Amino acid sequence: MEKEEILKKVISGKIKIYQIENFTETTEEAVEIRRAAIEKIRNISLNHIGKYSLNSENLFGKNIENMIGVVEVPMGIVGPLKVNGNYANGNFYVPMATSEGALVASTNRGASVITASGGAITTIFKNGMSRAPVLRLKSSRDYYKVSEFIVSNFDEIKKESEKNSRFRKLQKIVPYLVGRNLFLRFVYDTGDSMGMNGVTIGTDAAIKVIEDKFPEIKCVSLSGNLCTDKKSSAINLIEGRGKSITAEIMIPDKIIKDKLKTDADTLIDVNYRKNFIGSAQAGSYGFNAHFANIVAAIFLATGQDIAQVVEGSQGFTTVEKDENGVYFAVTLPSLEVATVGGGTRIETQKEALDILGISGGSKFSGDNAKALSEICASAVLAGEISLIGALAARHLTKAHMEYGR
Amino acid sequence: MEKEEILKKVISGKIKIYQIENFTETTEEAVEIRRAAIEKIRNISLNHIGKYSLNSENLFGKNIENMIGVVEVPMGIVGPLKVNGNYANGNFYVPMATSEGALVASTNRGASVITASGGAITTIFKNGMSRAPVLRLKSSRDYYKVSEFIVSNFDEIKKESEKNSRFRKLQKIVPYLVGRNLFLRFVYDTGDSMGMNGVTIGTDAAIKVIEDKFPEIKCVSLSGNLCTDKKSSAINLIEGRGKSITAEIMIPDKIIKDKLKTDADTLIDVNYRKNFIGSAQAGSYGFNAHFANIVAAIFLATGQDIAQVVEGSQGFTTVEKDENGVYFAVTLPSLEVATVGGGTRIETQKEALDILGISGGSKFSGDNAKALSEICASAVLAGEISLIGALAARHLTKAHMEYGR
Amino acid sequence: MEKEEILKKVISGKIKIYQIENFTETTEEAVEIRRAAIEKIRNISLNHIGKYSLNSENLFGKNIENMIGVVEVPMGIVGPLKVNGNYANGNFYVPMATSEGALVASTNRGASVITASGGAITTIFKNGMSRAPVLRLKSSRDYYKVSEFIVSNFDEIKKESEKNSRFRKLQKIVPYLVGRNLFLRFVYDTGDSMGMNGVTIGTDAAIKVIEDKFPEIKCVSLSGNLCTDKKSSAINLIEGRGKSITAEIMIPDKIIKDKLKTDADTLIDVNYRKNFIGSAQAGSYGFNAHFANIVAAIFLATGQDIAQVVEGSQGFTTVEKDENGVYFAVTLPSLEVATVGGGTRIETQKEALDILGISGGSKFSGDNAKALSEICASAVLAGEISLIGALAARHLTKAHMEYGR
Amino acid sequence: MEKEEILKKVISGKIKIYQIENFTETTEEAVEIRRAAIEKIRNISLNHIGKYSLNSENLFGKNIENMIGVVEVPMGIVGPLKVNGNYANGNFYVPMATSEGALVASTNRGASVITASGGAITTIFKNGMSRAPVLRLKSSRDYYKVSEFIVSNFDEIKKESEKNSRFRKLQKIVPYLVGRNLFLRFVYDTGDSMGMNGVTIGTDAAIKVIEDKFPEIKCVSLSGNLCTDKKSSAINLIEGRGKSITAEIMIPDKIIKDKLKTDADTLIDVNYRKNFIGSAQAGSYGFNAHFANIVAAIFLATGQDIAQVVEGSQGFTTVEKDENGVYFAVTLPSLEVATVGGGTRIETQKEALDILGISGGSKFSGDNAKALSEICASAVLAGEISLIGALAARHLTKAHMEYGR
Repeated sequence: MEKEEILKKVISGKIKIYQIENFTETTEEAVEIRRAAIEKIRNISLNHIGKYSLNSENLFGKNIENMIGVVEVPMGIVGPLKVNGNYANGNFYVPMATSEGALVASTNRGASVITASGGAITTIFKNGMSRAPVLRLKSSRDYYKVSEFIVSNFDEIKKESEKNSRFRKLQKIVPYLVGRNLFLRFVYDTGDSMGMNGVTIGTDAAIKVIEDKFPEIKCVSLSGNLCTDKKSSAINLIEGRGKSITAEIMIPDKIIKDKLKTDADTLIDVNYRKNFIGSAQAGSYGFNAHFANIVAAIFLATGQDIAQVVEGSQGFTTVEKDENGVYFAVTLPSLEVATVGGGTRIETQKEALDILGISGGSKFSGDNAKALSEICASAVLAGEISLIGALAARHLTKAHMEYGR
Repeated sequence: MEKEEILKKVISGKIKIYQIENFTETTEEAVEIRRAAIEKIRNISLNHIGKYSLNSENLFGKNIENMIGVVEVPMGIVGPLKVNGNYANGNFYVPMATSEGALVASTNRGASVITASGGAITTIFKNGMSRAPVLRLKSSRDYYKVSEFIVSNFDEIKKESEKNSRFRKLQKIVPYLVGRNLFLRFVYDTGDSMGMNGVTIGTDAAIKVIEDKFPEIKCVSLSGNLCTDKKSSAINLIEGRGKSITAEIMIPDKIIKDKLKTDADTLIDVNYRKNFIGSAQAGSYGFNAHFANIVAAIFLATGQDIAQVVEGSQGFTTVEKDENGVYFAVTLPSLEVATVGGGTRIETQKEALDILGISGGSKFSGDNAKALSEICASAVLAGEISLIGALAARHLTKAHMEYGR
Repeated sequence: MEKEEILKKVISGKIKIYQIENFTETTEEAVEIRRAAIEKIRNISLNHIGKYSLNSENLFGKNIENMIGVVEVPMGIVGPLKVNGNYANGNFYVPMATSEGALVASTNRGASVITASGGAITTIFKNGMSRAPVLRLKSSRDYYKVSEFIVSNFDEIKKESEKNSRFRKLQKIVPYLVGRNLFLRFVYDTGDSMGMNGVTIGTDAAIKVIEDKFPEIKCVSLSGNLCTDKKSSAINLIEGRGKSITAEIMIPDKIIKDKLKTDADTLIDVNYRKNFIGSAQAGSYGFNAHFANIVAAIFLATGQDIAQVVEGSQGFTTVEKDENGVYFAVTLPSLEVATVGGGTRIETQKEALDILGISGGSKFSGDNAKALSEICASAVLAGEISLIGALAARHLTKAHMEYGR
Repeated sequence: MEKEEILKKVISGKIKIYQIENFTETTEEAVEIRRAAIEKIRNISLNHIGKYSLNSENLFGKNIENMIGVVEVPMGIVGPLKVNGNYANGNFYVPMATSEGALVASTNRGASVITASGGAITTIFKNGMSRAPVLRLKSSRDYYKVSEFIVSNFDEIKKESEKNSRFRKLQKIVPYLVGRNLFLRFVYDTGDSMGMNGVTIGTDAAIKVIEDKFPEIKCVSLSGNLCTDKKSSAINLIEGRGKSITAEIMIPDKIIKDKLKTDADTLIDVNYRKNFIGSAQAGSYGFNAHFANIVAAIFLATGQDIAQVVEGSQGFTTVEKDENGVYFAVTLPSLEVATVGGGTRIETQKEALDILGISGGSKFSGDNAKALSEICASAVLAGEISLIGALAARHLTKAHMEYGR
């Protein structure tokens, strides 16, 4: 069919917008037609959406459907940010994509505090991606036989769950019971990938082993929300998901004064009243100022799943008196990051990972993703230092107004 | 200075990366130099990041600092999605930007269920943007005099808080006390803007009235985390922030069978065990399947603040037996959206809003933002219908594998 | 029927244990027979349960059914505890009933710190008992008409809700919407009574006004759990229930050293790490050490509803540096207390209230209950000071061992 | 000293109220003097408080200090309640102490539904009492060495923690990190005792092993609130504390109709809208109607720690369609009960346990406490059935009014 003809049929509804690829030779053509159809239907121009640097042939079905073009988000750079991690070590320039004025500038200020103070020290203390199906038992009593079966047959279940993947490693299966609903939280090491799709496939296979053994027990949903994916949750705050990581720094009094224009006591006081008392009164899982801002900007720049900013925003900022300054730390219990798969392979995102020197898989699978979590946590630390500092010095509104946000 | 010379000085550190704009005539030049510097320092190429359609002159200081280029995220389209809103009415094509394969296709399937069932009905039941400073009182007893002062002088405080803005309207100030910490939650109507910066400026001015009256009382932080911005919180789940909205649909049995390949009872069962029991056991504020995915993709496409996906993911999916089918609804208590300000003025984002017919300010300030919230909630409803349907029909992993996620 | 004959029939099951009162002239006789029946059936002796000072005739149907006797719990006294309240003013001896060794002694130590430091200052900042029915609407859109009806007809609804009570005053009705479920949180002033039953009766009457107007709308449950009664909840933590109250004290360094054997910095540090960081990580609504212990012991002694210890345990302990010592405060947002009704009229409980000088109704209805909340909060403050002090001085286990708990 | 002389000195303040035992030969005498002093000071009579059946000599220092007498709470009986447990098996008469009219009658109604339906089936799925100290590390990096030390030296730590106890068995130590705060959650089997004091002593000893090894690391507080004791918490909801138990029953339609005057669909609907949607919107950890009422009344009757009603009120009620009726279940993840120690040895409380046939230690340590948890959960199930039934049949207020609550 000719392009014009397809276009007409799309506009008239004879070809659905998701069917266009069936009638064109290239994805690119389909994208053009779809965009043109929207332009006609809505009588608008989509010039900017239609101009892009990506190769749409690589995207279709892997990253997007019904494509009409791209959204462009400005990318800025923060650095040098010194990170003393176990996987990321050195001075980094961190790409952040955002449309929130002052965010990059503010994080950059925090980065300069960290770098001047010797660099952020990071500690990854847990690492595991989870998927938790919910099974309906006949009676809560079945809990015993199912949980015993899982313990006795862990090796077989593990083998099934790891099929067709070199990297996915099942660590444990934790059972939770509510009435006759059995939730099984499968936790995996997923190497350099974020792992959500892999663990879904693996868990589906593993569940079949249980269903085969107990035909009277039914898997109601492959995700029973105890995973918990893309929703705030206490279970992730407590037990972690993805990387659980702390980044910390000792900031000397002189640097607090010179760079943040405030003092140790005020920083501590703001953090205590805002991030602890305020968040406690709010019933929040975010005992922090704005983890979400930095996490979102780095996730967007580097091709992470931006819906997972939800868990990434959970966590704690602690500011404590120390000899000659403050101890300042951020703890992110559920930071899910990847350097392979998903959006990380898209051209601009891959380049952003190149800036950090960690695009693609690492020699020892998992090291690149761990390095990314260390850089990310350090940048979050920078963001917290700068915002708590600004609130302490009371120039938040001033900063906003200057930058015209 | 010559471009080459500036570049050298940036590389050698004599010019900081945030100072480049001081030495160039145009922002564009500064962006180029900064990108070139990173390329040299890291010995990489940033070809794709460097190619963009946006005019960087409009972005500097308003949306980004330290710019090196853009990230491109593929944009797809969902529709036609029929919305029977009070502000958005008709068939919409909804732009979604994402790198998560299958998301647009899946949401599109849900949209077709909605449209076939007569269109989503939406109800905005609250509307207010909040900012909550924390004040340190001398004694908790001061609560009486401050809260009385606020009641007696509400008009004056309101006037101060609305200065220099045609749109910002203070609705109320709600006090919360913890020890001698007084949190004042200011709630505003902010028209078509999301309002975060405006309410910060307005609240700063309002607080000064209180500080002038009571010099012994100190505003510790302009944000005391009871706002609550970009952090999960019970206070937003309960009291709302931005738009509080429900979108609902009655889906006839025939459509459930034809389009979702399942039945009413299974849909209800999956929703009950996953979204209620599972989320309850997880300690989650997201009693839903994946609000965050759809909210994130629309926010990204239309220039919203993507860190606010955190609150946007809070809320409830209810699926209930109805005559000849199911009643399916989503409730989003804290959906913060705008059609003016922030990222909405960037070229590709503005075009995405044009697709919806609601870019920029509306005749009656606020109507466009309300329309956007209705479309957004309806798309979230589509996303929930499709995913709950897929889980019910157990083809989640199959979908994942087909689309290669 | 003769006593012996009734007893036989109870044992044989011909008379059910809840029917005995139908066959006896006095309650006392029924209690005896029931106890004798249990003794026979189980072949045990219930000598102690059977000896009591209460007049069972007053209890049947008001406080207990199927009575067999009483449980006795040892009552101790804490004091003098100086309270500088708006309703309770002076030195109090506070009755506490408990079987937890060391609890009274520990609270007494805290009381002596408070009294030596000049007395606790209390601030009641909210006062309202709530009941929240859930209504099923036809569509979420009905929200508009119902909420408008409530606003327009508030006076009539209020009148209905206050019928047959001199004391119950409806303050407000706050609507919450989830899907097509409308929760209406009715908040009342209930004078000196705790008010749970009164507000249930009042709300039932009020709901009928709404149901009469909208026959298509159904009240599914008179309590929709947004009240929230006897369950932990963020809504009570944030919006309060019963009395919301703070008690505070400035403790000079000398008293910290002499009485608590520790210092200001250590108290602050323990409170920060345990009551804020620890409770935050635990996902707790109790940002305190052991509110529940003191609340439970006073509730039990004075005839309160001990299941409401659940809400009473919610709240915050804040310890902050102050000139020459620490500022120490407790905030209890949902403390439900009464001096009339329920268990307060039982003989031993009434006497316990007499010790405080506030049994029965007050001249200005509500003053006695408010005074009780002030004394209770001050005793909670004492309990927190003592336990945080013990942890700071690391003699918790020592205290436990000495007292043989 | 003569009694009269001591009394005078107590009244004048020369002898403190907690010192009286130092001047008398018997505890009884001290109790009398103390009570007399309060009567004089307050000019009241404490006749009822002063009449009791307990032997005060056994109580002093173990269960109470500063004793003046007792509080009496009426005790009723519920039964026969059929329990099909792994530890409690048969028809039970369950003692409940309360002053809330209608509670015993209502629970009794539920018990008759359960017994008529064949008896409650119970499943204990976790069992462990926890204590979680908080340690301050020098740096979050110390996490590695401390957690490795714990793994490598678990046997030695376990041995220390179990010293001087035949029953306390350390199961595991789970680490949590926030900044440089390390929380170690020690979980123990504590046999028939509730175990709070034992695990405090054991954990104190265990921590010393860690402190000896790492002198630079400081135990800030033996309880870091991740235990979590007597405060609502997600960690207990998710990971459990004490007994984690489910009690369930299939109720045939006929019994629903005859005894509860409603039907299956209405029961399910009330439970869904109130206990799930309502509690979700409230931000509650109690997805139930009134666990706390039944738990409190049994705890009070049988000498449990009533402040632990806080955790006992956490949990889920699930009501689901089943062939010919409903599946009705309660899940209590954190039910802490004992048959030895604490208040269980007091005369009336011991008799209450005798009614259940489980006072004191069991042959296989732990069996009695487990049996108590099974009975308790079954009674909670009875309470939920009755109240959900009453709400479904809309006679809640009627019941209240009849019983004059």
